[in-house]
Amino acid sequence: MVSMVQRQGDVIKELEAVFKDRLFTEPHILSLYSHDASSEVGVKPMAVIQPVSVDEVVKIVKLAIDYGFKIIPVGSSTSLSGNATPKLENTVIVSLERMNSIIEISDIDWYARVQPGIKDDELNLELMSYGLQWPVDPASSKTATVGGVISNGGGGMRGAKYGPASHWILGLEAVIGTGDVIRIGCRTVKCREGYNLVQTFIGSEGTLGIITEATLRLAPLPESFVGLMARFRDAESLVNAVIRVKRDKLWPMVTEFIDYMIAQVLGLEPMYYLWIGIDTYSGSEQQILSKLNNDVSLSGGEIIDKAFTWQEFSKILEPRRMLYSATLKAAFNDYGTDAFVAFEDIAVPTSKLPEAVREIQTLGQKYNVKMVIGGHIGDGNLHPTVWARRSDKDEMERIMKFFEDVGKLAIRLNGTVSAEHGIGVQKKGLLREAISSRNDGNSDYVINLMKNIKRVFDPYGIFNPGKIFD
Amino acid sequence: MVSMVQRQGDVIKELEAVFKDRLFTEPHILSLYSHDASSEVGVKPMAVIQPVSVDEVVKIVKLAIDYGFKIIPVGSSTSLSGNATPKLENTVIVSLERMNSIIEISDIDWYARVQPGIKDDELNLELMSYGLQWPVDPASSKTATVGGVISNGGGGMRGAKYGPASHWILGLEAVIGTGDVIRIGCRTVKCREGYNLVQTFIGSEGTLGIITEATLRLAPLPESFVGLMARFRDAESLVNAVIRVKRDKLWPMVTEFIDYMIAQVLGLEPMYYLWIGIDTYSGSEQQILSKLNNDVSLSGGEIIDKAFTWQEFSKILEPRRMLYSATLKAAFNDYGTDAFVAFEDIAVPTSKLPEAVREIQTLGQKYNVKMVIGGHIGDGNLHPTVWARRSDKDEMERIMKFFEDVGKLAIRLNGTVSAEHGIGVQKKGLLREAISSRNDGNSDYVINLMKNIKRVFDPYGIFNPGKIFD
Repeated sequence: MVSMVQRQGDVIKELEAVFKDRLFTEPHILSLYSHDASSEVGVKPMAVIQPVSVDEVVKIVKLAIDYGFKIIPVGSSTSLSGNATPKLENTVIVSLERMNSIIEISDIDWYARVQPGIKDDELNLELMSYGLQWPVDPASSKTATVGGVISNGGGGMRGAKYGPASHWILGLEAVIGTGDVIRIGCRTVKCREGYNLVQTFIGSEGTLGIITEATLRLAPLPESFVGLMARFRDAESLVNAVIRVKRDKLWPMVTEFIDYMIAQVLGLEPMYYLWIGIDTYSGSEQQILSKLNNDVSLSGGEIIDKAFTWQEFSKILEPRRMLYSATLKAAFNDYGTDAFVAFEDIAVPTSKLPEAVREIQTLGQKYNVKMVIGGHIGDGNLHPTVWARRSDKDEMERIMKFFEDVGKLAIRLNGTVSAEHGIGVQKKGLLREAISSRNDGNSDYVINLMKNIKRVFDPYGIFNPGKIFD
Repeated sequence: MVSMVQRQGDVIKELEAVFKDRLFTEPHILSLYSHDASSEVGVKPMAVIQPVSVDEVVKIVKLAIDYGFKIIPVGSSTSLSGNATPKLENTVIVSLERMNSIIEISDIDWYARVQPGIKDDELNLELMSYGLQWPVDPASSKTATVGGVISNGGGGMRGAKYGPASHWILGLEAVIGTGDVIRIGCRTVKCREGYNLVQTFIGSEGTLGIITEATLRLAPLPESFVGLMARFRDAESLVNAVIRVKRDKLWPMVTEFIDYMIAQVLGLEPMYYLWIGIDTYSGSEQQILSKLNNDVSLSGGEIIDKAFTWQEFSKILEPRRMLYSATLKAAFNDYGTDAFVAFEDIAVPTSKLPEAVREIQTLGQKYNVKMVIGGHIGDGNLHPTVWARRSDKDEMERIMKFFEDVGKLAIRLNGTVSAEHGIGVQKKGLLREAISSRNDGNSDYVINLMKNIKRVFDPYGIFNPGKIFD
């Protein structure tokens, strides 16, 4: 034990020599980095470093190889599955928050090169002046960093049409577990240079290396837009409206919802709220709106607001972005700092949505849990969220059973146990169940492929231990 | 030598017992499978098998492990880089042409499950009756199979907006080099179940396993469409029109071109032809058309045809689909069966297109080669194609130098040496150069990552040897 402490002291000294006032070992700062936005409980890391260059990142990785410490690369730690929560004390948190520049925006080529620490909204604000967007838009876009979104493979609000993060990343620079810097991918949408290493990084939750630069694919902001906010008496009517829209072959960029409980917390009438936003060219707005009108009213809903630009729509969408904070507020109202919140994140094929929503409500009653539900309903992505008093063993058990059962429900309905939050710590069991369900009851050989890929990039097991399958 | 022939006899006997009349060893059939649509010269494989089930595919792989023979999985062998050309005699071609069913189409969930041997156009014809499309559309879509398109990571005509194959594949079933069947990915667009193994398969050119089923993401067919065919006196004017369209923030689904020589072969006036197709909703057509009109005429072009549905547009696009066959026709007119055709496939950022086209024409003159050029100009993807008399060593050398120099040009312009055709045999050198150019003059560690990933899926080195980096 003494020699380990001794050794840890040596590491800190070496790191201090390089990083000076960008190395933190003060207990209150270590506490801040001992967890992420999920309720997962972590341990204090041994240090937090804020590098400012790829060379500094290489130095950290080489020291980790020499001294055997672990690294968790983080952006804003907005993970809701415990992806960024340290579980081992010999961990150094590498926070990319100071590597947050935009290196280049090309308004003809529709790409941007950025450092990983830039926040999603900051980037999109800048892109707006070029008439462009990076359409990867998690609800946490004000806080989430681009590097975090990439590592997490996030989807978000514009994913139903534009696809998840993986469709919007052209190239990466990253430091892998050997200390080598690799520059992979291209600046063009088409890029067929051997195996797609960029895609292997996307959604790898910081387990393969540290992303130090990204080349992002951009899209033009829609020339015109038709957006609405509607409300419904029950979840099933809302889901039916979504299905009608798909049957009409309208292809919304955004289809979001929240339930009556969240609405209440936000000061809205306690009903189910739906947002649909369709990107289009000028001249088509009225006919799209009349179809949407029809779809909503035939499903028993009522349109309560409309928008005809993306900017206007972003404003009326604001309550949906509050799902996370409103849930936390409800949980803290109930239990104060003793609250534990579990964020589910399943997706099911659209046709299974009515059954999924019904069953989730039944499970909520069965386990007698406090639950809200919302999500990206256009791509079948639901976020049922439950909370309990940490100190109440029975209630904690009930929300954990609910969490597991919702995952199993997703599997039964041919869906996924993780749509965009990733596996982190909290979904490791469900990941195995999902893979088993498709592979004749055996998850081992698929998980082993992943473990072997991990070894290819991180042969010494430095990065984010204890996550996904570890 | 005798024992190898003996052993080969034993293999054939074992295969015959299982596959009966779906095993072929007749020399003229082996000849057919000794090459692909590129001019790459291959060797006769020892046998061709047409399995009809995943179990049969497993049997073949297990025999390959036991007997040490190699496997090349093929669809219609439309590769233009030699991806499907056998280079070793102890190769069994596994042709998926009989595994060509559509298993399921879900018109609400917008996915289809298919076997790999179905042809791209056959699938899209069926989907049309649902108002849906699989928007991965290589020029060879009449012949190319879905499995081949996936293995090749193809892009095609609708890629500038809709992205390449990798955006349209949700899940795969494949037999890997251990003989295990893996089912990876989901039926939903969002799917974050650990590392993205599906993406590793896409574009892997048959080197990691044999795809036996695919779950494809679908999109609605556009409600309305504005398409045009225009012609220009020179390439630069055409490219400028494309840049104007992007500056206008129009986001075409299709932007294609051919040059004056191909036009001539097709019986059109010898000019440069551009096709632009924009998917939209009804009501916006006239204002889109007026913008396009402006962009074309300000660039010195002339609109010669228009279309207002995708189906109509497909018809006027037909000459562009003939790029491959028209080039072959020109080459065979010149040299008969002695013709060797080299298909380049670079992409550069849009802003570099004028320079790229100019330099390619200069290189064509420098090496005094017969050249045509066309491609998916909306995503910067150019296909300069040259031919020579195989028996003319000097001319062959000149086209090879041209081929190499065009690849180097792409690297210099921050583009890629392979946009959608893959590496196969013909781009192995250029792949290393492209990777070196971004990685401080060293391609080894990136290539080694790929070699190690290959080992994860194919530990015995069974699949498609001699390709990409091998």
